[in-house]
Amino acid sequence: MLHFTFLGTSSGVPTLTRNVSGLAIRNSKNKDWILVDAGEGTQHRIQQAKLSLKNLIAVCITHVHGDHCYGLVGLLASAGMDARTAPITIIAPKEIQKWFEATTELTDLHLPYPLNFIDVNEATQIQPLTDELSIQAHPLSHRVPSFAFSIITQYTQKKLDTQALIQLGVPKDKAWGDLQQGKDIQFNDQTLKASDFIQTHIQRVHAIVGGDNDQPELLAQSCQDAQLLIHESTYTQAVLDKVGQGPMHSSAKMVAEFAQQQGLGNLILTHFSPRHQDSAGQQAIAEEVRAFYKGNFYLAHDFDQFSLDENGQLLKIDKT
Amino acid sequence: MLHFTFLGTSSGVPTLTRNVSGLAIRNSKNKDWILVDAGEGTQHRIQQAKLSLKNLIAVCITHVHGDHCYGLVGLLASAGMDARTAPITIIAPKEIQKWFEATTELTDLHLPYPLNFIDVNEATQIQPLTDELSIQAHPLSHRVPSFAFSIITQYTQKKLDTQALIQLGVPKDKAWGDLQQGKDIQFNDQTLKASDFIQTHIQRVHAIVGGDNDQPELLAQSCQDAQLLIHESTYTQAVLDKVGQGPMHSSAKMVAEFAQQQGLGNLILTHFSPRHQDSAGQQAIAEEVRAFYKGNFYLAHDFDQFSLDENGQLLKIDKT
Repeated sequence: MLHFTFLGTSSGVPTLTRNVSGLAIRNSKNKDWILVDAGEGTQHRIQQAKLSLKNLIAVCITHVHGDHCYGLVGLLASAGMDARTAPITIIAPKEIQKWFEATTELTDLHLPYPLNFIDVNEATQIQPLTDELSIQAHPLSHRVPSFAFSIITQYTQKKLDTQALIQLGVPKDKAWGDLQQGKDIQFNDQTLKASDFIQTHIQRVHAIVGGDNDQPELLAQSCQDAQLLIHESTYTQAVLDKVGQGPMHSSAKMVAEFAQQQGLGNLILTHFSPRHQDSAGQQAIAEEVRAFYKGNFYLAHDFDQFSLDENGQLLKIDKT
Repeated sequence: MLHFTFLGTSSGVPTLTRNVSGLAIRNSKNKDWILVDAGEGTQHRIQQAKLSLKNLIAVCITHVHGDHCYGLVGLLASAGMDARTAPITIIAPKEIQKWFEATTELTDLHLPYPLNFIDVNEATQIQPLTDELSIQAHPLSHRVPSFAFSIITQYTQKKLDTQALIQLGVPKDKAWGDLQQGKDIQFNDQTLKASDFIQTHIQRVHAIVGGDNDQPELLAQSCQDAQLLIHESTYTQAVLDKVGQGPMHSSAKMVAEFAQQQGLGNLILTHFSPRHQDSAGQQAIAEEVRAFYKGNFYLAHDFDQFSLDENGQLLKIDKT
């Protein structure tokens, strides 16, 4: 299962209710988490969301615009205050590494732990992050090179075929335990092979988190296998038509039509222009999505939490 | 009169109640304001404090450590979103200009208004910012070059000597207005010269805002003329003794002793280590100050506002 916490859902500038981009994603198997984008103030949101920088294992930066990266160095510095030694992987455009290096040199920053920079262009090949968590980058279309990230958790569940054992009359004692651990056993002068009684299930959860992008259809291939798309929807179509193509963002309609065409089960929209952040603005976005997409969708707010399971069920988690 | 709004009072890292360094200072004559230090999240605090980036005319950066400057580029970027054309003066170490230039190049940032960078080493000579507002930098002692800033507002008040006019029997009509405007008048066959009836007062307010510093006595000379010192007090003396001299910060005792020796009328302490931010920690700092300083002092919290007038009266402004 993947667990998502939105840390910033505003486009361009922070507002009183929404910060600029940041999204925490945790594999529910342990406390490790990764961060997609780190706009200024992301470390403040991390504190407020009660996430610990100690468990942060990777940061993915979708593109170099400030509202997606100006919080990176501050949070890396704060992560170093606790004498951290575990490395952090950074998957980002090359410029981000250069910017980090310039910043450390010019601002007397000395991290007590290593960073493992991976050029996002290399990460278009799948990058295993831990035994269970992998990341893959997909190019998008924006004013600067921008990327989406597939976040994939996959693990093998080994389950004993208890039905078969009950039918054979194998008592539920040490024998079951041995089989579970892969040991063959003797039962009624027969050898029961563990491999015959262990069923292997591959549990896979795949979510795609997009950066700024004016061509959702670029994600057509990678979305075929995804259970959730998280995508920017900076404007409604009417506002985008007025603003023009210059900023190279998506409207709610563009993303909704794409998701519908793909038969995507779940969609979360984020990265709203300040003009769409009040209730009327959010309603306009929601109505536009509803008009073009028949699946399950949410408009993200800061601190919203969601879980996505192996069956593709996306749930919004109540904050209590 | 000068008006102060504390935007961040935490040392090193933000906490749930305090941001890293930032202080807004306004000359009460107009809406123009200057910012001393811009830790990450300062632009968020500016919004929360209902200050407008439109009226920001200058930013002073005391030193290059991230908790004093990582919010600079984000707030300059946001100031540019409103199609600002008025310049902003930046008085800072040379590295800050280099960092800004590297950041703009690597993160595709294009400000629609000019920045006027002044090397803080040049600003040890007084820098007139507006007709009424001047800034002067003073070197301090820290792990990197660090500076304090004198913020000086000075204006000439011209007041009519109404007592003398009443004694002469000059009626309170157009004649008074003419004299006030510098015109000589005829009264009872006499010429009354405006210059004889206009009293000129120079109103001057001088506050010093320090950066990180382990030798308050470096400010002895500049403080002779100051009505207020705002200085870091990262630790109590006991904690500083335990932490050691390495971080090169001041204790409450060090600053209090200095202020007492100088005969300073007003002192505001800020930049507290997270360990001194709860009520017990604040009490320990306050008691230490009280033991060594007999003047008027405050420990700053985020969003605290103060005014300092020509007579050196420092008032904490109630938030209503």
